[in-house]
Amino acid sequence: MYLDELWKNCEKLIGKEIDVHGWIRNHRPQKEFGFIDFSDGTSVKHLQIVYEKKIENFEKIVAFRNGSSIMVKGTLEKSEGKGQDYELKAKKITLIGDCPEEYPLQPKRHSLEFLRSIGYLRPRANLFQAVFRIRSVAALAIHEYFGSHGFVYFHAPLITASDCEGAGEMFQVTTLPIEKLNGEVDYKKDFFGKKASLTVSGQLQAETFATAFSKVYTFGPTFRAENSNTKTHASEFWMIEPEMAFCDLEKDMDVMEEMLKFVVSSVLKNAKEEMEFLDKFQEPGLIEKLNHLVSTKFTRVTHEEVITILKQADVKWEFAPEYGCDIAREHEKYITEYFHGPVFITNWPKDIKAFYMKQNSDGKTVAAVDLEVPGAGELMGGSQREEDYDKLFARMVELRMNTEEMEWYLNLRKFGTVPHSGFGMGFERLLIYITGVENIRDVIPYPRTPGSCDF
Amino acid sequence: MYLDELWKNCEKLIGKEIDVHGWIRNHRPQKEFGFIDFSDGTSVKHLQIVYEKKIENFEKIVAFRNGSSIMVKGTLEKSEGKGQDYELKAKKITLIGDCPEEYPLQPKRHSLEFLRSIGYLRPRANLFQAVFRIRSVAALAIHEYFGSHGFVYFHAPLITASDCEGAGEMFQVTTLPIEKLNGEVDYKKDFFGKKASLTVSGQLQAETFATAFSKVYTFGPTFRAENSNTKTHASEFWMIEPEMAFCDLEKDMDVMEEMLKFVVSSVLKNAKEEMEFLDKFQEPGLIEKLNHLVSTKFTRVTHEEVITILKQADVKWEFAPEYGCDIAREHEKYITEYFHGPVFITNWPKDIKAFYMKQNSDGKTVAAVDLEVPGAGELMGGSQREEDYDKLFARMVELRMNTEEMEWYLNLRKFGTVPHSGFGMGFERLLIYITGVENIRDVIPYPRTPGSCDF
Repeated sequence: MYLDELWKNCEKLIGKEIDVHGWIRNHRPQKEFGFIDFSDGTSVKHLQIVYEKKIENFEKIVAFRNGSSIMVKGTLEKSEGKGQDYELKAKKITLIGDCPEEYPLQPKRHSLEFLRSIGYLRPRANLFQAVFRIRSVAALAIHEYFGSHGFVYFHAPLITASDCEGAGEMFQVTTLPIEKLNGEVDYKKDFFGKKASLTVSGQLQAETFATAFSKVYTFGPTFRAENSNTKTHASEFWMIEPEMAFCDLEKDMDVMEEMLKFVVSSVLKNAKEEMEFLDKFQEPGLIEKLNHLVSTKFTRVTHEEVITILKQADVKWEFAPEYGCDIAREHEKYITEYFHGPVFITNWPKDIKAFYMKQNSDGKTVAAVDLEVPGAGELMGGSQREEDYDKLFARMVELRMNTEEMEWYLNLRKFGTVPHSGFGMGFERLLIYITGVENIRDVIPYPRTPGSCDF
Repeated sequence: MYLDELWKNCEKLIGKEIDVHGWIRNHRPQKEFGFIDFSDGTSVKHLQIVYEKKIENFEKIVAFRNGSSIMVKGTLEKSEGKGQDYELKAKKITLIGDCPEEYPLQPKRHSLEFLRSIGYLRPRANLFQAVFRIRSVAALAIHEYFGSHGFVYFHAPLITASDCEGAGEMFQVTTLPIEKLNGEVDYKKDFFGKKASLTVSGQLQAETFATAFSKVYTFGPTFRAENSNTKTHASEFWMIEPEMAFCDLEKDMDVMEEMLKFVVSSVLKNAKEEMEFLDKFQEPGLIEKLNHLVSTKFTRVTHEEVITILKQADVKWEFAPEYGCDIAREHEKYITEYFHGPVFITNWPKDIKAFYMKQNSDGKTVAAVDLEVPGAGELMGGSQREEDYDKLFARMVELRMNTEEMEWYLNLRKFGTVPHSGFGMGFERLLIYITGVENIRDVIPYPRTPGSCDF
């Protein structure tokens, strides 16, 4: 029996004989008896196993080491000890797989750097048991939200021949024998007959599906070959990109807010013990922070209003806030504190935003939105998309983009164009916020970063 | 209001005035009135819109073309016409986005080849409205199955530096300036400091998580640079790879069977109208085929038993069945017909299976399983994994694999090894089976195949 089933039915199982199999997380053998802190990883809650001297092979069992896998037959009982409500009185303990003394994951505090170096074992550590279960719960909550709201889950292509967004930061994908190339590359001989790369966003393709199904979302990996070794950059990460036809920026923000609150609530409910663990050991106040997010109405202000507030603030800025310019981390922080909660900043200067965003009538701004969250900065970004063919075409020409290669994208504005909007959320950014873990490398099972591609 | 909401509440909405927005799928204007076959893509069920001569701008409306987007205000009524239960009596119809005469997607039968060439528009066609909604429903059903059975959803890395499985068929991932290389490649200067590729399977990494969480699954993209232009090969496809600790081959098959039945039942229930459409136009008998799958107990036979049956069969084989060898498509077909349903074939000759499979005591076979399904051939493959360090090591040496690079994988057998099993299911292969669509290019939003990487 797996522990998740045991905990679900523990009241019924009291006094019953059961079998469990799992790993020794910690072993405290005594002269006359012993305690095993036991887990099979299906629940963050471990099971205490108690055995007495009269058990078969007592002398062998006391020597079982941390990390070993065992099978235990015993009776579930209410525990009188501290720290647990139930314990398993063992009748028989069988070793399945031994674990040598040099097992790197001992029951003590290891540094996160060290744990990264044993990435294939770290999911067994308490912190990562919590983090990766929360990653799973959050992912399923995202699917539940969109599935129950009539969105079609759309798998955007990962390999792409279009390099419209930031060509310099894309990974190239090839089957050419690059060890044998001599300064000349014939892409006709490459696998796809042309130069191909890994996608940085599924949005443009999602727009094609939004003009067919009205409500769609992607949830898949995206890639960025950015040479940044920071706590928040990874080369491979998962993104959620919803796209909605007949939807303006206001409705877009409604969905962003509702979805975020749903996912956070779902994690608080469905990963309660994991969150309590993190609240205790990782970020004191974490649960309160998230409860506040769920119960707060998000503020909506324009970029211009934000700059005015920043300019009027009695603060000595490192970067002076300016109309028409981007805002810095210090400004983001101030603004969420000013409004005591999450803030949607809308109508950004068009020159610092992407080509596809809807041009506002002022000629200066676009219908873009960033969500700034206390303690996390920008958590999502979205926009209404430009649905007017001529305006989009002109903007692309202005930015010297290849309009021919993007004809299909432009054509969405020719064949029954509709107002539509969407947004993107980096899944790992959300997880950093939810778990309190600081480094993106610690919320990704096997992180890929510059110079690092292990396991 | 989106149509999915309208259909959910249509009884309550009768006689009420509502707004809808969507596209003209077909327009039949008459002298005194007109009919519009209308859809916003949120439901496979279209809405019939009826307007009369007295409507504002009647002369303009009759000229609205297929593919145009419109907003309609009107009253929902029971329809007396054939083919629909409800219709919207329009009070006002507004053009949102025009659509020119040359719109390639007219309401007539187009070839699948032609529709692939307009991949960004084909999701608007009826067939793809059904197929891609089923893709979404099936994906969510997979998450629902594993989520409700205590599995942790695990995101396997896509970029990998390990090339243990079929090096020749992997895409290389690089940021080296390949146009400028001159026969010498220094991988220390590549993005990850070593040669990197796109993964062909997340299984090995999933095993590391299974020895931490017991029950895990991946659901993500995998890649194969195989130069095969067939109906069943794509270079980028999605795989589901569950992995379970404390699980032998029998339990593995239990999960395979239960999961498949759950997903198929879920599609039959939650995409009822889409399935009826496909049953009518794509594969007559489709629903009956799937109902049979759901209600049949799958047969379990060994590879050896299968060869004996094939040898005894009164059939002139193109490929003679032989003990110790793989079986051909004609054999798969015969065997599912022989047993009147899906068949698990177990204990395959070790030389035609992967290195990590558990070696049986006969010294000749491994604890592998393939699921053969009537009309689809092999739908899933799985195995119990070799948990014995020495046996696995010896097998890897025998196959001249790099054991040093794979030390982490071997170490799972050193640090508390456990019996564990898993399987893989190609998501598109499942979709071909469920939808009756024959070509893998038609169940992937934007397929990538040799020489083809469009949109």
